[in-house]
Amino acid sequence: MIKARVTVTLKNGVLDPQGKAIEGALGALGFDGVHQVRQGKVFDLELDGADKGKVEAELKAMCEKLLANTVIENFSISID
Amino acid sequence: MIKARVTVTLKNGVLDPQGKAIEGALGALGFDGVHQVRQGKVFDLELDGADKGKVEAELKAMCEKLLANTVIENFSISID
Repeated sequence: MIKARVTVTLKNGVLDPQGKAIEGALGALGFDGVHQVRQGKVFDLELDGADKGKVEAELKAMCEKLLANTVIENFSISID
Repeated sequence: MIKARVTVTLKNGVLDPQGKAIEGALGALGFDGVHQVRQGKVFDLELDGADKGKVEAELKAMCEKLLANTVIENFSISID
């Protein structure tokens, strides 16, 4: 069993209204000095297998097919 | 300027229907051997300041007040 974490973030230049809203809310709560907030997603997966290289290739395919929209999002994979 | 990443994940034992749906969808796409998927959130922030300790304390307060629901979610902070 292999545990992996996939992090999906918006590409630079892609508008992030959710991040902007959080930035505004932090300011309203009195947290000054926050310049930019961008929100992304994280997926924690448990997968069968022992070969980390094979599992990484499979995770890459999962990201391209389902977990990330590669037109506007980047993804990174880290395997424990 | 300090860059930080806050990762918010559901606590163990908290139901994650979104993660279950992703797990089902991965199975339907032919990815076998995926045992568990849990989805969380990630926030990339840019903050004023040079004192990492102070910024970390501020980020902790942001998590407790806005970014995470500490009843059902854990958060972790990493500062570049």
